[in-house]
Amino acid sequence: MPKPIEFWFTCGSTYTYLATERVRRAVADGAEIQLRCLFLGRIFNEDGRWPFPDEAAKTRYMWRDIERRAPALGLSPVLPAPYPAPQTERANRVAHVAIERGKGLPFLSASYVAWFEKGMMPGEDAHLEAALTAVGLDVAEVLSAADAPEVEAAVAANTAEARERGIFGVPTFVVGEEMFWGDDRFEDALSWANEGA
Amino acid sequence: MPKPIEFWFTCGSTYTYLATERVRRAVADGAEIQLRCLFLGRIFNEDGRWPFPDEAAKTRYMWRDIERRAPALGLSPVLPAPYPAPQTERANRVAHVAIERGKGLPFLSASYVAWFEKGMMPGEDAHLEAALTAVGLDVAEVLSAADAPEVEAAVAANTAEARERGIFGVPTFVVGEEMFWGDDRFEDALSWANEGA
Repeated sequence: MPKPIEFWFTCGSTYTYLATERVRRAVADGAEIQLRCLFLGRIFNEDGRWPFPDEAAKTRYMWRDIERRAPALGLSPVLPAPYPAPQTERANRVAHVAIERGKGLPFLSASYVAWFEKGMMPGEDAHLEAALTAVGLDVAEVLSAADAPEVEAAVAANTAEARERGIFGVPTFVVGEEMFWGDDRFEDALSWANEGA
Repeated sequence: MPKPIEFWFTCGSTYTYLATERVRRAVADGAEIQLRCLFLGRIFNEDGRWPFPDEAAKTRYMWRDIERRAPALGLSPVLPAPYPAPQTERANRVAHVAIERGKGLPFLSASYVAWFEKGMMPGEDAHLEAALTAVGLDVAEVLSAADAPEVEAAVAANTAEARERGIFGVPTFVVGEEMFWGDDRFEDALSWANEGA
């Protein structure tokens, strides 16, 4: 019996674009994956470290790396996508509601299509409308639900839990006590879930 | 005809432990790989960013990640290894001399055996003596050569070239204009060298 995999993400993460497609494929093949949305920007702000500053060599590399790796996953992004995404916190709250409605993964996929393929900034009205519509959720109703204090509190609690458990970046996959950071570690997480090592 | 691969490293890098073994195996299989030693700490200092601060969650993860990945490469490290390595700059100069003597890769492998498997801090006398002896180089002669101003200048020139070319971390593999960062991207670099994509 494979162990479940937790998939921790933030809607403004670039590499989560690749991870979401890997997860989508694995779930289609029967993997049990639990989505957990945190607001990673809060952890970055607390640590005073952001991974991809404007104009940095590492940021240029990140876009090229994603561009090179996308085709193997059947993805066709238009890069660089708008970045950073100042309304990530709002997108996260909407994602949390989508998870509660049983549409977490389709919403996340649609969110990345809108962002990485259609150039819509995550968390802006047009982006959320496109992603929610794509998965058949009521736009006005979900946007209203996402503004509830309980939703903000739930994402904040996820963020606190993530920090407590040692999560410092996303995508991160957790199997029991084992943590795997980076979209390129998803297959390792799958192996760990299936074989326990 | 495969393109050559540049392998950029710094002797104090942790993930370069895994990369060195990957490169060693590829070279044994006939790959053409050029070793380039830079002093990455200088770039980190200039940028004000070090990837693995003491006590950080990311640093704990890094050791666990290496521990999990080492067995697949036939490696048996004793972790965490001493870190950070304050004499990395000296180890880099010695590595540069070893490259000039045609012993770069064996020296780097021996350097990591001494560091990751025997617990010797890179750049300290015992560490350099162990690594140089292991590859049949004259310890006193090489240590003296490594103190020459030309060697310091050569490593500094490599570091400047690396920054100019957009290198922000190691191990980094370069094939023509394409850069691959991280030991887990070595196979991608090999494919690029062999197939041009």
